Amino acid sequence: MEIFDRARKIALINSAGSILSWDQETYLPSGSTEYRAEQISYLASHAHELSISSDFFNLLSESESKDDGSDSIRSANLRELRRESDRSVKIPTDLVARESTAQSAGHHAWIAARKSSDFSVFAPHLADLLAFAQKKADLWGFKKEPYDALLEGFERGTSTQTIASLFEILREKLAPLSAQAIENTKQLNPELPPGPYPITAQQSFNALIAAEIGFDFHAGRIDTTTHPFCTSLGPRDIRLTTRYDESDFTSSLFGVMHEAGHGMYEQGLPESDFGLPSGSAVSLGIHESQSRLWENQVGRSPDFWEKFYPIAQEHFSQLKGYPIEKFLQFIHRAEFSPIRVEADEATYDLHIILRFQIERLLLNKEISVADVPSIWNELFEKSFGFIPKDDAHGCLQDIHWSMGGIGYFPTYTLGNINAAQLFKAATSVPEIAKATAAADYSSLLTWLRKNIHEHGGTLDPPVLIEKATGHPPSTEDYLAHLSGRYF
Amino acid sequence: MEIFDRARKIALINSAGSILSWDQETYLPSGSTEYRAEQISYLASHAHELSISSDFFNLLSESESKDDGSDSIRSANLRELRRESDRSVKIPTDLVARESTAQSAGHHAWIAARKSSDFSVFAPHLADLLAFAQKKADLWGFKKEPYDALLEGFERGTSTQTIASLFEILREKLAPLSAQAIENTKQLNPELPPGPYPITAQQSFNALIAAEIGFDFHAGRIDTTTHPFCTSLGPRDIRLTTRYDESDFTSSLFGVMHEAGHGMYEQGLPESDFGLPSGSAVSLGIHESQSRLWENQVGRSPDFWEKFYPIAQEHFSQLKGYPIEKFLQFIHRAEFSPIRVEADEATYDLHIILRFQIERLLLNKEISVADVPSIWNELFEKSFGFIPKDDAHGCLQDIHWSMGGIGYFPTYTLGNINAAQLFKAATSVPEIAKATAAADYSSLLTWLRKNIHEHGGTLDPPVLIEKATGHPPSTEDYLAHLSGRYF
Repeated sequence: MEIFDRARKIALINSAGSILSWDQETYLPSGSTEYRAEQISYLASHAHELSISSDFFNLLSESESKDDGSDSIRSANLRELRRESDRSVKIPTDLVARESTAQSAGHHAWIAARKSSDFSVFAPHLADLLAFAQKKADLWGFKKEPYDALLEGFERGTSTQTIASLFEILREKLAPLSAQAIENTKQLNPELPPGPYPITAQQSFNALIAAEIGFDFHAGRIDTTTHPFCTSLGPRDIRLTTRYDESDFTSSLFGVMHEAGHGMYEQGLPESDFGLPSGSAVSLGIHESQSRLWENQVGRSPDFWEKFYPIAQEHFSQLKGYPIEKFLQFIHRAEFSPIRVEADEATYDLHIILRFQIERLLLNKEISVADVPSIWNELFEKSFGFIPKDDAHGCLQDIHWSMGGIGYFPTYTLGNINAAQLFKAATSVPEIAKATAAADYSSLLTWLRKNIHEHGGTLDPPVLIEKATGHPPSTEDYLAHLSGRYF
Repeated sequence: MEIFDRARKIALINSAGSILSWDQETYLPSGSTEYRAEQISYLASHAHELSISSDFFNLLSESESKDDGSDSIRSANLRELRRESDRSVKIPTDLVARESTAQSAGHHAWIAARKSSDFSVFAPHLADLLAFAQKKADLWGFKKEPYDALLEGFERGTSTQTIASLFEILREKLAPLSAQAIENTKQLNPELPPGPYPITAQQSFNALIAAEIGFDFHAGRIDTTTHPFCTSLGPRDIRLTTRYDESDFTSSLFGVMHEAGHGMYEQGLPESDFGLPSGSAVSLGIHESQSRLWENQVGRSPDFWEKFYPIAQEHFSQLKGYPIEKFLQFIHRAEFSPIRVEADEATYDLHIILRFQIERLLLNKEISVADVPSIWNELFEKSFGFIPKDDAHGCLQDIHWSMGGIGYFPTYTLGNINAAQLFKAATSVPEIAKATAAADYSSLLTWLRKNIHEHGGTLDPPVLIEKATGHPPSTEDYLAHLSGRYF
């Protein structure tokens, strides 16, 4: 068996595990969570065992020694498999199994804790999951701080220090920008006509828009969950989820556009390379650039609504006679919300910067898990000027920590930055600018397919961005976009 | 690792595969069937490999040698694991993988073939699947004919000859009984008030009835598929499916009661023994006795409708003012239908006997796959007096062959026979008779739990029936039930 066949087999097992996880979030009966955790954990360890077996490393070395560099994709695949497996082999199989079990338990504890806004229900699980993260960072090794080792798994080729510096600049610019945007919103006091916006109408409008921007429903679907996500269950099986707010249809709509952005990236990866680096998403920061591009650069643009507002009016009777200008003011409103996923473009990154700080403090053991609620509220008040009413609206709001996703949040802001830079570059092509202005997105998607999706994981994220846009990642286009949006 | 832990691990992998199959039937995007087949096939071979490994047999022998017979459940588990694994080991892993792939392909071809009523689309797949069945029968070995070897996998401890003799008697009695029942129906000409019976109302009524008879929705759910089924995805995760006919709500209702009967059996198996013979259903004939008991003995009884007809009237406005007597005549109507799953109690077994004959002819190579449509129509006409209008209503109507389920159909009629015998025995307990007459089924379910479910697979089906009812399996109660129903 060749190393690439082996990698495909491991991907097949992992994708089977993803099906079980997807079902856990969507349709699993309440009494079956424990056994499901065992099933998921078994598949995770089984795949991990294969990926760290001596057999795997022998196959890899053999292919490496035969590689003459004449096929750059093949060489990139070998290089990335080597990078991944040198990381994987450092983590013992039993640690993977125990972490997977802890994640399932943590996830269910988090649901209960958030429901009752009781951090103490989640705290021991977070402590467990943090210990796993620290243990893994130690095993992987790092130059400066444990965060580096975790970050590398989500966004290769960057450092905690680089992120921290970048976030420092961004926070400085965002502080006045967000304050001014909020002030402007207060003056306009924009509103959406009152609901209910029936869920069935939301579903049909969301599906129409997702298909319109290019999500392929023959290779994917949309279901309902508490926390929206996108997951790949196979090369042509990409599943999005959303949740519905009957008082505001834009909540599920932008959620679907966001997840469809992730989904179209997955659908655009080279199908025949599924399971190989060249058929896989390169990083979370690039993944998030796709979701934020479709959600914000496209979905919140006046051009988009010029075409689709009349269709929204057909779906939701409340909008009939309601002027598009007022609707745009509503979707462009800025306010300090305690909830990240409800945050607007002007304030979103402040949430990310806050979490990045807390995660870093935890990993550097400058604070303990028990301190999280108070530190959260303290830092939150500094940025937002108020304290969330409870932990459900504070440190318990997000799913990520409950699933062991520590070292992950900065990629959201990297995504915003990359999205703006990519959209700017794509629309500097006159035909794309013209089509996009008319809310026809096929040429934009084609550009993204060619410049991002089709490369899979063969290029490092900064290289990919520079190749696509002509210059290295920078906050310039993003800040210009925000200024344009709000002023 | 102990042999029982190993058996549980294999069950865990198989149940993960069942999740993938369930999803394939319910929610899989149309473009992803090929990769899903690979995923399912991998898990099937992986489980099979473990179950035929020398390691498995060593563990089994070790436990057998230590067994002193002091724990009868333990001894039964060892005996049944031995029986199963001696069968499994005869089938090479690559045959299992190739058969699983052929089943997926066959399943999709069958869907297309049935849609266009074109047997030629399915024929090469059926030939493949038949060859797999023949190959397996040869590998397992048999005394008289290949059918014996296949039957043993579905209904241990019986023989093709026993079934054939039983079916001969049944057919003789059913011929006049069904003809007379149909004649009576013609005179009454019963009807259901015209639809539409909205799907959402059907769903809520079905869920109410399923819960009322004892299906636990914390450990299960109901979804929609073309061909209804029940599958176990874990000890507390039992999934039913149904399909809806807007012109007749009883179609999905009786379907749900049928599948819930299967489901309550699975939910009643000893939970802590999941994956062991003592925590598994013993045979398809016993499984079907549970589904047919709830569908027919309970669901079509006048006592049941005495209580639930008023509730049906609340769900379906058409029924308001429609007399219960006429409704009962409708659900007790008898007619020769080309479709098995729509057949009534008077004619159902004639369908099964027909299929049993054809499967036996195929396996004994007395006919070829190409002959199936003509033989089907010929035998059908003999029993039913007419020829189905096309193959979609004839030999293509059922899913089973497309999934390799050959040697399986007789268990449906065994289920009918067992259901009548069990219901008769349970209701000979005065308190159960009284509760059941008042449509309170908790004591009936308790009796079934104690006498059938809790035994899992520790007793051979005929022994289980004799223990529960006081006499060996016989057609007596079933024929008495049918006479009572129709005359």
